Amino acid sequence: MAAPLFERLTIIGCGLIGSSIARIARSKGVAGEIVIIDRSGQVRERVITLKLADRVAADVGDGVVGADLVIFAVPVLAMGEIMAAAAAHLRPGAIITDVGSVKGSVTNALTAGAPPGVFVVPGHPIAGTEHSGPDAGFAELFTGRWTILTPLANDDPEYAEAVRRLTAFWLTLGAQVEVMDAAHHDLVLAVTSHLPHLIAYNIVGTAADLEGMTEGEVMKYAAGGFRDFTRIAASDPTMWRDIFVANKDAVLEVLGRFTEDLQALQRAIRWGEADKLHDLFTRTREIRRGVIELGQDSPESNFGRDRDRL
Amino acid sequence: MAAPLFERLTIIGCGLIGSSIARIARSKGVAGEIVIIDRSGQVRERVITLKLADRVAADVGDGVVGADLVIFAVPVLAMGEIMAAAAAHLRPGAIITDVGSVKGSVTNALTAGAPPGVFVVPGHPIAGTEHSGPDAGFAELFTGRWTILTPLANDDPEYAEAVRRLTAFWLTLGAQVEVMDAAHHDLVLAVTSHLPHLIAYNIVGTAADLEGMTEGEVMKYAAGGFRDFTRIAASDPTMWRDIFVANKDAVLEVLGRFTEDLQALQRAIRWGEADKLHDLFTRTREIRRGVIELGQDSPESNFGRDRDRL
Repeated sequence: MAAPLFERLTIIGCGLIGSSIARIARSKGVAGEIVIIDRSGQVRERVITLKLADRVAADVGDGVVGADLVIFAVPVLAMGEIMAAAAAHLRPGAIITDVGSVKGSVTNALTAGAPPGVFVVPGHPIAGTEHSGPDAGFAELFTGRWTILTPLANDDPEYAEAVRRLTAFWLTLGAQVEVMDAAHHDLVLAVTSHLPHLIAYNIVGTAADLEGMTEGEVMKYAAGGFRDFTRIAASDPTMWRDIFVANKDAVLEVLGRFTEDLQALQRAIRWGEADKLHDLFTRTREIRRGVIELGQDSPESNFGRDRDRL
Repeated sequence: MAAPLFERLTIIGCGLIGSSIARIARSKGVAGEIVIIDRSGQVRERVITLKLADRVAADVGDGVVGADLVIFAVPVLAMGEIMAAAAAHLRPGAIITDVGSVKGSVTNALTAGAPPGVFVVPGHPIAGTEHSGPDAGFAELFTGRWTILTPLANDDPEYAEAVRRLTAFWLTLGAQVEVMDAAHHDLVLAVTSHLPHLIAYNIVGTAADLEGMTEGEVMKYAAGGFRDFTRIAASDPTMWRDIFVANKDAVLEVLGRFTEDLQALQRAIRWGEADKLHDLFTRTREIRRGVIELGQDSPESNFGRDRDRL
């Protein structure tokens, strides 16, 4: 086996993403030693039982000592506080990254607290499920998925080398890697992930409040599109609360456009403007099909594996 | 093999649903003879090539002659016109049903045009995919899915017998059958199917209009919840246009509530009301989980079969 990419990998936060990284990093031999930090005693016990790490730590400072790669896998609003606890203990030359779904505010939180001599390279693997915790992770989570890195504007060749090493890390974990700036990431994710989650949470709430309908009834007949929404709406509340707070501007921007478009549709329904509805529905079908014909639909999508029933 | 439930089954419209009924009806021997009517010559050729029917007809009147079960499997706004073409040729005692996603307006269209002596029993199998046409159907489409029947208020024992026979038909096709009134059906479907489709169509359009983002980029990072929306938004435009026109009142009602709730969420994001967001997200997660723990999550859901990645 080739020498590991990193001598000591420390993962802070052992939820779905952190535990998946640990599983695949271990099976691929990416790191000489894996340390997992988690403040929850229950989680630490699971980490030991599941043999996810060589060492488990409760204290952030204790866990990051000597690590050459530190991955912050905690809710996005917790990044600054964790960096404050870690900063004095980070080894010079260490690469610091994260897996947060928002990059602008997380970049600010990490760089503001980082000591000189470490390399902060924010990142975001676009992968997940609606399940949470160390038992929810699995080694194939990143296979064929994109990880977006949003490096700082930094011309230092040592920084470029840090980005290169982190890229190699994610490629070894099975992901594809794309580089973009943090603001563009936050807009792309606002529309492809944050807005869909917000809508899913919202429609499940709306349905549950309808008089004369039971919650059981809502799920019973949910084959018609609704089941996907309820699945998404079961995602981790703390993680998603933080995302909407941290990516407020981009979310409000795309939400405003979405609402505007929806009101135009609502008006078309009220006035029976059938052609307008047909035109939009035809256009969206072509968008989906055009993309598939261009071969850009990931073969790793779970939802295309067998027959996609609505 | 037991005697077939019906001597002659006529299916009007050979799209996804019509062709699926033909496939399973044939394999189960539910009908002595299967006749398929379609106005498109191309579709009729596919029906012959795929051997979906014993006889193929272009003319509605010609195709319904002698049938003891006639299934209207056409877009909901076409029901009245098809009934007008069929009425004079229907056999007394024939059972007339449909598969439309809206029941109130379809019931009116069918009963207004039906001749005396036939039994109109509106129905709706809650199953489908985003694909259309005779090649998209498959025999397992209804397995474990619900078919809702919305019988008329009719105390005639012969009518009750017609409902019983149609129920037996759907059970043989693998579906579970539920009976409710048309207005309740239309409200349940407005929230579990029609609103989700409207939102999916809308968000795909909103995303495609975002400046600085390519359509390819939207799909590339769609793993975060958006992929399901684009799949749903690829559904048949004519069928869905008709649904929104035909179920206008119920759709506007649930859409109004959805928008109201979304505006409250938008306000919570703008003002950073993290607790309010957390409360809603926790509640929807519990709704989803509560239902699953009650065992009401259909084992036939495609999206639960393997790991559900967002």
